[in-house]
Amino acid sequence: MAHEMMMLALQLGVILVAAKLCGWFFSRKLGQPKVLGELVAGMVMGPYVLGAIPLGALGPLFPVVSGSIPVTPELYGIATVGSVLLLFTSGLETDLPTFLRFSGKATVVGLGGVIISFFLGAWITVLFNPAVDSLMDPEALFLGIISTATSIGITARILSETRKISSPEGVTILAAAVLDDVISIILLSVVVGISTVSLAGGTVAWGSIGAVALKAVGFWVLCMVAGILLAPRLTKQMKRMESLGVLAEISFGIALLLAGLSEMAGLAMIIGAYIAGLSFSQTDVAGEINERVNAVGEYLVPVFFAVMGMMVDFKALGSILVFGLIYNVAAFIGKIAGCGLPALFVGFNLKGALRIGTGMLPRGEVALIVAGIGLSSGIIGNDMFGVAVMTMLLASVAAPPMILASFKGGSGYRETLVTDEMQGMVTIELQFPSERTADFMRHSLADAFRGEGFFIRTIEGSVRAWQIRKEETVLILRRLGAKLELSAKKEQEAYARLMLMESLVDFQEFADSLRSMQEPEMMGANLLMRMFASQHDETEGPNKVQ
Amino acid sequence: MAHEMMMLALQLGVILVAAKLCGWFFSRKLGQPKVLGELVAGMVMGPYVLGAIPLGALGPLFPVVSGSIPVTPELYGIATVGSVLLLFTSGLETDLPTFLRFSGKATVVGLGGVIISFFLGAWITVLFNPAVDSLMDPEALFLGIISTATSIGITARILSETRKISSPEGVTILAAAVLDDVISIILLSVVVGISTVSLAGGTVAWGSIGAVALKAVGFWVLCMVAGILLAPRLTKQMKRMESLGVLAEISFGIALLLAGLSEMAGLAMIIGAYIAGLSFSQTDVAGEINERVNAVGEYLVPVFFAVMGMMVDFKALGSILVFGLIYNVAAFIGKIAGCGLPALFVGFNLKGALRIGTGMLPRGEVALIVAGIGLSSGIIGNDMFGVAVMTMLLASVAAPPMILASFKGGSGYRETLVTDEMQGMVTIELQFPSERTADFMRHSLADAFRGEGFFIRTIEGSVRAWQIRKEETVLILRRLGAKLELSAKKEQEAYARLMLMESLVDFQEFADSLRSMQEPEMMGANLLMRMFASQHDETEGPNKVQ
Repeated sequence: MAHEMMMLALQLGVILVAAKLCGWFFSRKLGQPKVLGELVAGMVMGPYVLGAIPLGALGPLFPVVSGSIPVTPELYGIATVGSVLLLFTSGLETDLPTFLRFSGKATVVGLGGVIISFFLGAWITVLFNPAVDSLMDPEALFLGIISTATSIGITARILSETRKISSPEGVTILAAAVLDDVISIILLSVVVGISTVSLAGGTVAWGSIGAVALKAVGFWVLCMVAGILLAPRLTKQMKRMESLGVLAEISFGIALLLAGLSEMAGLAMIIGAYIAGLSFSQTDVAGEINERVNAVGEYLVPVFFAVMGMMVDFKALGSILVFGLIYNVAAFIGKIAGCGLPALFVGFNLKGALRIGTGMLPRGEVALIVAGIGLSSGIIGNDMFGVAVMTMLLASVAAPPMILASFKGGSGYRETLVTDEMQGMVTIELQFPSERTADFMRHSLADAFRGEGFFIRTIEGSVRAWQIRKEETVLILRRLGAKLELSAKKEQEAYARLMLMESLVDFQEFADSLRSMQEPEMMGANLLMRMFASQHDETEGPNKVQ
Repeated sequence: MAHEMMMLALQLGVILVAAKLCGWFFSRKLGQPKVLGELVAGMVMGPYVLGAIPLGALGPLFPVVSGSIPVTPELYGIATVGSVLLLFTSGLETDLPTFLRFSGKATVVGLGGVIISFFLGAWITVLFNPAVDSLMDPEALFLGIISTATSIGITARILSETRKISSPEGVTILAAAVLDDVISIILLSVVVGISTVSLAGGTVAWGSIGAVALKAVGFWVLCMVAGILLAPRLTKQMKRMESLGVLAEISFGIALLLAGLSEMAGLAMIIGAYIAGLSFSQTDVAGEINERVNAVGEYLVPVFFAVMGMMVDFKALGSILVFGLIYNVAAFIGKIAGCGLPALFVGFNLKGALRIGTGMLPRGEVALIVAGIGLSSGIIGNDMFGVAVMTMLLASVAAPPMILASFKGGSGYRETLVTDEMQGMVTIELQFPSERTADFMRHSLADAFRGEGFFIRTIEGSVRAWQIRKEETVLILRRLGAKLELSAKKEQEAYARLMLMESLVDFQEFADSLRSMQEPEMMGANLLMRMFASQHDETEGPNKVQ
């Protein structure tokens, strides 16, 4: 075992250093997502390229391990934990209320994209891959799903940076991408079920597909309902332990368990992880859990992407390059047409439809995980895995400039998310003499709420808005210049005012103590004077001066 | 591979939940170290107890894997990364200057403890274990080392909570424990070297032992010198990347690499990890790295301890219980006599000697890791591994009350660490009207220093003292009630005064803006008045009131 552990330490060490450096270089120097850098690092140092070079007595650092996965089970295990973590945090960050609020338009747009992309992806595979002769072939189905899942990370960051995230297009893209993920994960469950039957030599009848789909949707619904009912009770119990750290670690443990259970139920691990995240996303501690789990993700997720990159066998990819390009064109059309056309029918003009189509272009984590599952279960080969990675790379590199370009030139109306969220809420305003005073008051107010057991998190995509939450009570605090605004539901207005009062009294005590103090100018003058005085006074060691 | 990954997710999920709950229970409810709870959780749910129970179609959750380690390589790999992390942070937290300052007394005390414990441990094994007939038998040597390494964590926490950490006894214990760790890790290198020769069937001549020892010490010295020279340059380069996160992740990558390299050099992995930690401990970003790596440790370290607990085979332990108790008595005498007697000769009275002896009693991580290395390389069996775990459990449970009792009743003089640190430093004092104002000023001052590229960390064992550091410039900030003290070397006094000035000017601007504002009383009164007013005014939705 000692030799395996030594190899693991060396491999992990090299991966961490290389993936982090590449990720940094891609994001800071090339303006590309970090993920791409990590993926490329893995492709370059993996068992098919640099990793194969023998290093003296050690031999190759990444020897090709036989089987469908070319790395050791120890390393792949750590990458797998990374993928569970990734989907758990995706679930945690999903804003179900936003999704529900924009569900109408988003459903039309999302479904359009999913259906067109899935059938284009599968159909292209049937057309151009001689080994595949039916849309029901597991390989075709997998390539369909790979083309389906939008990676919202890239688009969300661009929208957030250009302050378009609460535009009608922005909100629709976000909600459609959530739907996207859910549908492609459910699709994956169904396809894995079909493939299991098909690989075992059985014929896939429509009846058995129905059974598999029912099982997948059943597991999904059962877990979601149980999760959403249990998560708030569970976190309430765990909060009694008075350690948010322990709460976060146990939540991640539950995500791993649910991941294992969903694999046992014949679905993919990431489904359980995603459901666990969705369940906890509705609790008041979601932000705290997310922050703590993400700290681990900083180490595990780059390992996952680098290991995914290592699976790209360039020799296998060479023979399939033309197919890859055609597949990519199909993936492009699938989203532009699949999401853009329906958008035209739900109130967007041509410009809006184009924005939505390009915003849905990037493929990412989910596509890669789906491809990895296909590879490890032997459904797709190294060549098709390479096509998936190629799609992710091309889409991620090509999409950002297109999204930026499409969002130029302001058309039409803008209803902001915040206004919508504020329906039926009362806003209390307090004017302060300076931004700094307002910020100081904000900190005292936040401390006061924390003292009452509230959790505070920055509202996604905003710089100066915070959600203050304890179980079902939700308040929103904003700072606009030197003004603080605290919004609460009508029935919680009195409580909000009392909390403000408390902080004001506290604030006043502080202001009074400042008024009573020696003039800061005097202290400053003293500081300078003594500076010169002490130059002539070097008699003893630890000398104390004012 | 899919089945292995499913098992890994289920096992890790159960371990995280159980270990965290047990750790919490032990620390919050029983007042014991968390580590013990994690270890016990592993013992109970491991392959020799609950883990062996078949769970329906899944089979046992923790089936006994054949070979010296009863868990899967995937799980053991994650535990191994946890042990590397643990020793890396131990190195990071080692305060080399403290160690050097108290090196005289500590060397005498530490060496005494190491020598007596090592020989007692090895000798007891020769006496009572029929399979071992010489002190040079690898098994005897391993049991010697297991008895050697003090776990400073438990003692340090008790000393810190009772504010004895800077007493002469406290400082001596801390420094001796550092020496302890270093010596037992070097000893481990030598013993692993000897065992490799011996297991390969060669006779261990004194000449070859000398060669092994020379190689171990050589690797150690080489890495230490290289590390201490390179780490500051490396961190200086990495700081240009402007991401402390990336810096921490790359540092941990380097620790993994060094761990792998030291295993390649025939030493144990933890040696490389510890050296990497020691090297970075001398850089200005040590605190930042430690904090970020520890966030991952919260997940990985419990897995390590739980997996160690899983290796305890109770059946093997039953037959060796008497030996275990005798070994424990020897381990107890080894430290009480080995550290206490020398302490009498370097200026401590009987009370002080007893304090130092009991303070050195706890055995912990290092002992367990050493035992794990012995088990995985086949040098010791399940029975002796059980003895090591038993020693750790007994010493950790028994030591804390003894340490607390021995430190009761104040004898003699107390020279504090801080005073000592302050030799040749100038202290600038600023008096504020209240603790809160002083704290406010402290925050502005900290921000000002951070703006200049300084790193700030709380000084170990203190609540209101901070180290402000940038490369070679070190300042110490303390808050005593409403007074701030900033200490700097004579040649940096002018710089320190200018920074204070800058913060004071900033502070004054803030105070002025407070003076100019509307009376907080008025704002408060308004808040209350409007509260009643708005009760009658529920006409429209988002209504804004002051």
